[in-house]
Amino acid sequence: MIPTKQHLEEAIATVTPFVHQTPIVTSSSLNEIVGAQLYFKCENFQKMGAFKMRGAVHAIQNLSHAQKKAGVVTHSSGNFGQAVALAARILKVQAYVVMPENAPLVKKEGVKSYGAQITECESTLAAREATAAAIQLKTGATFLHPSNNIDVILGNATAGAELLQKHADLDFLLTPVGGGGLIAGTALATHYLSGNCKTIGGEPFAVDDAYRSLQSGKIETNQTTQTVADGLRTNLGDLNFPIIQELVSEIIRVEEDEIIHGMKLIWERMKIVVEPSSAVPFAAALREKDHFRNKKIGIILSGGNVDVSNLPF
Amino acid sequence: MIPTKQHLEEAIATVTPFVHQTPIVTSSSLNEIVGAQLYFKCENFQKMGAFKMRGAVHAIQNLSHAQKKAGVVTHSSGNFGQAVALAARILKVQAYVVMPENAPLVKKEGVKSYGAQITECESTLAAREATAAAIQLKTGATFLHPSNNIDVILGNATAGAELLQKHADLDFLLTPVGGGGLIAGTALATHYLSGNCKTIGGEPFAVDDAYRSLQSGKIETNQTTQTVADGLRTNLGDLNFPIIQELVSEIIRVEEDEIIHGMKLIWERMKIVVEPSSAVPFAAALREKDHFRNKKIGIILSGGNVDVSNLPF
Repeated sequence: MIPTKQHLEEAIATVTPFVHQTPIVTSSSLNEIVGAQLYFKCENFQKMGAFKMRGAVHAIQNLSHAQKKAGVVTHSSGNFGQAVALAARILKVQAYVVMPENAPLVKKEGVKSYGAQITECESTLAAREATAAAIQLKTGATFLHPSNNIDVILGNATAGAELLQKHADLDFLLTPVGGGGLIAGTALATHYLSGNCKTIGGEPFAVDDAYRSLQSGKIETNQTTQTVADGLRTNLGDLNFPIIQELVSEIIRVEEDEIIHGMKLIWERMKIVVEPSSAVPFAAALREKDHFRNKKIGIILSGGNVDVSNLPF
Repeated sequence: MIPTKQHLEEAIATVTPFVHQTPIVTSSSLNEIVGAQLYFKCENFQKMGAFKMRGAVHAIQNLSHAQKKAGVVTHSSGNFGQAVALAARILKVQAYVVMPENAPLVKKEGVKSYGAQITECESTLAAREATAAAIQLKTGATFLHPSNNIDVILGNATAGAELLQKHADLDFLLTPVGGGGLIAGTALATHYLSGNCKTIGGEPFAVDDAYRSLQSGKIETNQTTQTVADGLRTNLGDLNFPIIQELVSEIIRVEEDEIIHGMKLIWERMKIVVEPSSAVPFAAALREKDHFRNKKIGIILSGGNVDVSNLPF
C-alpha cells in the first residue's frame, strides 16, 4: 500500500527535469523569533507558483499515449488546476479544470493563461466532483485528483526530497495539511531519505479533519470551508490517509489569527510572497515553540499564488 | 571630482564582508512582458532590507576612532536610517536617526529594533536637516548624508558591481533615482567595470528633479513629495550630481499608476516583496519597451521595506 523507496527514486528522476530546484532560504530574524533553525523550501518560487507542479508533472508523465490524447481533467481550488494546466501544456495534452466560483481571481487567471479550459461550479466538494465527472464522461479525459493519487503524492515528495538532500540532519519537516497529498509525499521522502527526521503537519483549527482523522482512525470531514488558508479546505483521501497514519508523527492545529500573523512575518522579514496555506506550518512552529527549541526544522512554503489586492492583513 | 577605479575597488573590499551578496533573479514571465532579458539584483533581500546598508557600512567604516566614539547622525525617510542603525550596531557606534513623521511604520520599527535613537520631525527637507544639525551640535556625532556623501555613493556602487561581475554583458543597468546616491554609485560601477553598459535612471514624474536637473545643468528641486515611491522624494546633491551628469545616459520618468502596476507585477510574478521605489526602474523599462527590445537589462531592486498592511493596490 505504501510506495517503496524505488517508487520515490523513480519519481525524483521523472519530475526533476521539469521543475525548478527551488531555493532553500533562512532568516536569522525568524530563527530568533521561533528559537530554532528554520530552513524554508520555497515552492512559492516553483513553476506556476506552487509545489503542485511536481505532482501534476509526475501524474501526466505516467499516462499512456492514448490517455494523453484524450486529455486530463481535475477539480481544484486553484493551485492544482494551474499545475495541471501548465504541465499539460508542456506535455502537449489538453487540460480541463473545474474550479469553485470563490477561488482567488489570480488562480483562475493563471489556469486560463496556460491554455486550459475552465468550468466553474459551487465550492462544495460534491459539486466539484460531479462537474469533473461530467467532463470525464464527455471527453474521455483522465481524472487527476489533486491529492488522492499515488503519482501525485510521489511527485509532491520531490520537494521534501530536495530539502533533505541539502539538509540531511533536519529534526523535523513541517508541511501544511489540506487534501493530504503534500504531507503524504513529504512523509515518504522523510521516511526513505532521512535518519530520524519527523514529519509534522500544520492545519487550521477551522478545518482540522486530518487531526481528527488521526485521532479516530478513519477519514473525517469538515463542517465548514471557512479558513483564510484557501488551499487547505479539502479532506484526506483513502490513498494518502494510510501513508499519513503510518508516517506522520503529529498534526499541530493553528488559529486563523496565527496563520495571518505568520504570513505577515514571512512577508515582512523574508520579503517573499507566500499564500496563507504556506504560513500554516510556520504558525505551527511558532505556536509550539517549546517543542522545537534549538531544533533544525524544514518548512515547505507550499505556494505564492495569492491575490495581492485582497490580503488578510 | 569623480572617484577613481581604485576608490571603487577599495569600497568593494571594505563593504563585501559586511553585506549579503544578494541573489540575481530572472523571470521568464516578466521577460516576455517587456520583450527583453531582465536581471533583477535583489537588494530587498539585503540586510535591513535595502541597498542602503552598503553605503552606511562603507561610510561608518571610514570614520576615525574618535568620530566613531561620538556616534553618527542621519536623517532619512526610512531605509538609510535603518541602514545606519544596523551598521552602527555592528560596528559598536551610537546612531541617532531623524525620521519624518509620515515615514512608514515598518521603517520606524526597524530603526528602533536596531538600537538607534529616533527623533521625529516634519517631512520637509528643511526640518530634517535642522533636527539633525541640532543633534550633531549636542552630541558631536558625525553627520552621514543618505545620498550626498562620496563614501555612501561608493558603498552603494557595490550592488551594481556584484551584478556586473556576474553579467558583464548587460546593455543597460537601471536604478531608481531619489537623492542620487544609488544611481551615482551604480554609474561608477558601470563606468569602471563594464564595456558599453549604459546607466539609466527611473524617476516618478511627480518628483522629477533629477530629470530636470540634467536638462538645466543645475540641481532642481521638487514642489511636492507626493509620490507612492516614498524613497524617491529627496533631491540630488552637489557631490552626486556631477557623477550623474558625467556618467548617467538618461532618466526615464514614470506615472504613479505605472509604478503601482510594476510593483504588483513584481509581487505576483516573482513572488517577492519590493517597495514602490524598487518598481520605478522596472516601470521605466515597461514604459519604454521599444527602446529595450531584446536587450540585456540589469535592474536594481533597491529595497523591500514596505508596510504590507498599507499597500497601494
